[in-house]
Amino acid sequence: MRVEVINTGSELLLGLVLNTHLGFLAGELAALGLRIERQTTLPDGSAIEDMLRESAARADIILVTGGLGPTNDDVTRDAAAHAFGCPLQLDPEILEGLRQRFACRGIAIDDHIARQAMVPAGAEVLPNPHGTVPGLYFPPQTAKSHRPAVFLLPGPPRELCPMVRDQVVAKLRQLVSGTLPTMRTLKLTGIGESQVEATVGAEIEALPGLEIGYCARPGEVDVRLIGSDEVVVQASDLIYAALGSYVFSSGGEALEEVVVQLLREREMTLAVTESCTGGLLSHRITNVPGASEVFLAGLTTYANHAKEVFVGVPGELISRNGAVSPEVALAMARGARERSDAKFAISTTGIAGPAGGTDTKPVGTVFIGFALPDGSAFAAHRHFRADRETFKRLASQSALDILRRHLLSLPQIS
Amino acid sequence: MRVEVINTGSELLLGLVLNTHLGFLAGELAALGLRIERQTTLPDGSAIEDMLRESAARADIILVTGGLGPTNDDVTRDAAAHAFGCPLQLDPEILEGLRQRFACRGIAIDDHIARQAMVPAGAEVLPNPHGTVPGLYFPPQTAKSHRPAVFLLPGPPRELCPMVRDQVVAKLRQLVSGTLPTMRTLKLTGIGESQVEATVGAEIEALPGLEIGYCARPGEVDVRLIGSDEVVVQASDLIYAALGSYVFSSGGEALEEVVVQLLREREMTLAVTESCTGGLLSHRITNVPGASEVFLAGLTTYANHAKEVFVGVPGELISRNGAVSPEVALAMARGARERSDAKFAISTTGIAGPAGGTDTKPVGTVFIGFALPDGSAFAAHRHFRADRETFKRLASQSALDILRRHLLSLPQIS
Repeated sequence: MRVEVINTGSELLLGLVLNTHLGFLAGELAALGLRIERQTTLPDGSAIEDMLRESAARADIILVTGGLGPTNDDVTRDAAAHAFGCPLQLDPEILEGLRQRFACRGIAIDDHIARQAMVPAGAEVLPNPHGTVPGLYFPPQTAKSHRPAVFLLPGPPRELCPMVRDQVVAKLRQLVSGTLPTMRTLKLTGIGESQVEATVGAEIEALPGLEIGYCARPGEVDVRLIGSDEVVVQASDLIYAALGSYVFSSGGEALEEVVVQLLREREMTLAVTESCTGGLLSHRITNVPGASEVFLAGLTTYANHAKEVFVGVPGELISRNGAVSPEVALAMARGARERSDAKFAISTTGIAGPAGGTDTKPVGTVFIGFALPDGSAFAAHRHFRADRETFKRLASQSALDILRRHLLSLPQIS
Repeated sequence: MRVEVINTGSELLLGLVLNTHLGFLAGELAALGLRIERQTTLPDGSAIEDMLRESAARADIILVTGGLGPTNDDVTRDAAAHAFGCPLQLDPEILEGLRQRFACRGIAIDDHIARQAMVPAGAEVLPNPHGTVPGLYFPPQTAKSHRPAVFLLPGPPRELCPMVRDQVVAKLRQLVSGTLPTMRTLKLTGIGESQVEATVGAEIEALPGLEIGYCARPGEVDVRLIGSDEVVVQASDLIYAALGSYVFSSGGEALEEVVVQLLREREMTLAVTESCTGGLLSHRITNVPGASEVFLAGLTTYANHAKEVFVGVPGELISRNGAVSPEVALAMARGARERSDAKFAISTTGIAGPAGGTDTKPVGTVFIGFALPDGSAFAAHRHFRADRETFKRLASQSALDILRRHLLSLPQIS
């Protein structure tokens, strides 16, 4: 089946927003054995109707994102209604939902908002629990004239992603015949993409019928395996045998999710004291639902005074060793553990840059401290050459990974 | 002039790599007053030749990235030679360059490598100091048959970007006639996209020759204005007159950058105590280079015990009012301000969900506390219905905006 994706939004073509939809949709489609043959980005406006006609002549499935909102440049709904000859009708249920939603904010429904309640004849409504505007699904028609399956989806990722996972995938599955391939993504950290490929690439690529893809992100390599169940298991086994300690998930979980789960299973609690990661460790951990069961406190002790006041790092220790030192990393971790009553504490202190580096401690230097349940502590030294935000990401990834490895060595309780 | 961009590469359509070319090219083109009217991503292979013919029938300028390398799936050069009827000829200079380059690595030139020295008749070579393969430029033809200006560019960003900046931009400038337009993006917070349009949309859209675009993100609306310098100023003035207090930047700055700058100009310092935002406020502020000048400490007091220990919230206050209450928000802010010696402190306490809501305090409830330089304090109550991560974003945005508004009322010192 030929799949095409149309992303609408002038902001994409003006370079104001990065297109993250394509990668997300590609991943969801790959799990169904579907591949995108063409992706097009269009500005908001009249080009969308022409594109829908053009694409409908080639494709079996079309996924459109964006342009369903209330403003005048949101024309996707109208464009599809014209292109496929489906007159728009007011859907009273959607309108009532909009009315209630806006009433909470003390806003009355006007014509702009009400446009979002218009539904083309024959299209199914895809409810949107994360936003005001629902998605729309045009089932395929083969009787008189060919019409591919067409999905009109909201642009904001926090609305698009759940709608695709919870509703679109099920409809696509009905359209796809035959057995679905298995897809598994192994996530590794602490190792580079080329090292992964050099270690296991040749052996894995020799497996018949397996498709393999590598995707490198800061501090993480994803290896995507697609094929029969048997061959995917074979490939996974090869990777685990050679690089198992680097693999932190095989079910799509982020590193922070894995760490929270390990803490929970071992009935452990955590506190963090951050300097150079500036709250990112805390932010990542608290993104995991239920983190409050295991995460007690995060302290961003940015100023030296804050290191003294909040986690009891002696000022003398800082002036003797510098704030970026293993000694201070240890004291930060110990102080956080003791004061918060957590079993574990992690600390980070380093130089994110762009300024602040010295000859002996260049930009990119980081010390990661660990205070353990038995009262002992250790510090790890890392160096990451990267821009400020990537540095924070890499340092937080490294800290979480060291904790993960340590937790794996402890017995599982619950 | 109509510009189209074609990005080739199966890895883009498999979701393994994010397309960062589009944003980069858009930015370079915008500075020349050029806008991309359509962008297409294609897999490596035969689809490229058809796409070039299709695009050439519409566009005045085509930029193609990728597919110029030595492997069998690199077909862009051949596709363009066919599509535009320009036979390939061996360029001895490129071949000699390749020979020297590979000789350094002890590799002899084979047929695959030599393919990169083939140049379509009539195309100009764009040297590539950052890689092996040069770019190619087909100047526009109007004499017998229409051919747009076509650029074939390398895929790797570290080769593409300098080639565009150093060579392509100069050629494009020759193709563009007339004066360049002005582009300005106003960023607003605390107001919805549809409210912005309802308030100023009609007046702004009535301005002749102005192009306006809206882009909504969680807690933020971007209004993009493109046109003559005069009309962009008129539109900005209209927006500032009606909605000025919601506008936090007109030069692309993020809200956290604006807040750090305001703190710096007023010689103020900040501490934050977070519960429901879980470190995101701290993370956002420390993303700004130089934040350490004004940001002293961030405390994620997730557990009640942490609220007591780190910022001195009385346990009795928590048990009487609940951790999610204006009283606790105030005590968190006051405690952080006093202990960190910061002039300002912000606090957040709320229910991010998905679990933890009650009838009187449903999921989405948040109290934002502020402790001010004069020792006074106040708390704001907000409610955000959203998934966990968006809730954190919205609450942090609201906290930063209240601080921004307060800082604006203070005199600027430096």
